[in-house]
Amino acid sequence: MSECLSQGEITKALENLSGWNLEEGKLHKVFVFKNFIQAFGFMTQVAIVAEKRNHHPEWSNVYNKVVVDLVTHDAKEGGAITEKDIKLAEFMERAAG
Amino acid sequence: MSECLSQGEITKALENLSGWNLEEGKLHKVFVFKNFIQAFGFMTQVAIVAEKRNHHPEWSNVYNKVVVDLVTHDAKEGGAITEKDIKLAEFMERAAG
Repeated sequence: MSECLSQGEITKALENLSGWNLEEGKLHKVFVFKNFIQAFGFMTQVAIVAEKRNHHPEWSNVYNKVVVDLVTHDAKEGGAITEKDIKLAEFMERAAG
Repeated sequence: MSECLSQGEITKALENLSGWNLEEGKLHKVFVFKNFIQAFGFMTQVAIVAEKRNHHPEWSNVYNKVVVDLVTHDAKEGGAITEKDIKLAEFMERAAG
């Protein structure tokens, strides 16, 4: 089981994550890239790290856009935000440059 | 401009595409894989071909699932199914094994 973050902890983490917000209980961001190569290159970097950490995003892609939702399913019924989500969001920020 | 397929042509193409159907004017399929590595491996194969053909899917992924929608945006306002979509669906079938 992963430990759920409090609302205060989530709010504090979001202050350091540009463009992210809490939507339907998930960490949400729309990334916009120059083109598909950039967008899918970003996804590939994230995919490898997600698999390595065994913590995978919910995401969709249309051409240069990647919409991401992060939540930890094993934290509680229906899912909750944990440190794993914050850390994956931070990695995504670095990967997106 | 790509040439729109007629309803009859789409129906005929769908007969040879297992698990695909027309949903909101798009070729739609949910692919289910063994795990994330298989799912993202599939996406990577498709991404390279999509970029090469300059015809990109709308798709989402959660762990072992990939939901795909194919439509040709430049065929007419709002998009339409063209041969490009059928060919990309056929490639996806081969890539998914």
